[in-house]
Amino acid sequence: MTTILGIDPGSQVAGYGIIQVHSNNIPVHKTHGCIRLAKSMTFSEKLAQIYKELSHLIRDYQVNEIVIEKAFLGKNVDSALKLGQVRGVCLLVAGQNNLPVYEYAPASIKKKVTGAGNADKEHVRLVVLRQLGIQSEAALDATDALAMALCHSLEKIIQLKTNTLSSLAKNADFRN
Amino acid sequence: MTTILGIDPGSQVAGYGIIQVHSNNIPVHKTHGCIRLAKSMTFSEKLAQIYKELSHLIRDYQVNEIVIEKAFLGKNVDSALKLGQVRGVCLLVAGQNNLPVYEYAPASIKKKVTGAGNADKEHVRLVVLRQLGIQSEAALDATDALAMALCHSLEKIIQLKTNTLSSLAKNADFRN
Repeated sequence: MTTILGIDPGSQVAGYGIIQVHSNNIPVHKTHGCIRLAKSMTFSEKLAQIYKELSHLIRDYQVNEIVIEKAFLGKNVDSALKLGQVRGVCLLVAGQNNLPVYEYAPASIKKKVTGAGNADKEHVRLVVLRQLGIQSEAALDATDALAMALCHSLEKIIQLKTNTLSSLAKNADFRN
Repeated sequence: MTTILGIDPGSQVAGYGIIQVHSNNIPVHKTHGCIRLAKSMTFSEKLAQIYKELSHLIRDYQVNEIVIEKAFLGKNVDSALKLGQVRGVCLLVAGQNNLPVYEYAPASIKKKVTGAGNADKEHVRLVVLRQLGIQSEAALDATDALAMALCHSLEKIIQLKTNTLSSLAKNADFRN
């Protein structure tokens, strides 16, 4: 069993989503939500809040792996610096808990989860909620985070199948 | 008495320097050094190391204020993201310890400490070591960090004098 935490980092809202993948390869939804950072907080206070909530989630759900979207940087260095500061805290929490971090490009996540690399956030939400059997409402930042975890679980299954196939092929070679 | 920690964030080497400013306004050197991050470490492990060492410094020296160089970004978004990730951890540590963070532009630090906004790192080191009466050798990342703390202490003294003068002027107005 693997417990995967997806994080959508932001300095106003940071989304998170946790799923579990059992030996039958069916992903099970554990929790999702948003860390909302008040405008009145200093940037340092916001980072401390993100750190605290992520640390609690990792401990409470015994997370094994972390997924963060590969930063889409554009050309704005100020935005890159700001995003970097929040990402730094996410990576730190992973490091402190000895958890591996996996990164996927936004288009790759959308493609794997919905089948379309250019799907919008609403579409991603729809597919994620249906796929995980979530009946309640969910903010887009949270479903984006769940999509990251889901994408990683699918990637793991593909990897596992590829390894099994190549191992079978090897065995077949030996026999011939 | 105020204890000031200057941090020069980097993902290979992070410099730090701590000074104390007493009521006589003379800055006293407490410590300085470098957090060296092994190439074999993952980025998350590096951030965890920086976090640990900065947290210890703040606790051991009872730091009251933190100074970080204002990020000089250039045009490279990748560098901005990387620098942001390390800065995020520095800001987080400040937030967790309820410490105010002060930022100064590189040229402003050099100008205040050496008198020349375009001074090179060697020159900054020379002035910093002399001004703080440090006899031992010191890495450039550490003296850069000390220069930040020193710049902030000078800024505080100027601010204090300005406030005193304007308060004296106000009192004089009342009397006239």
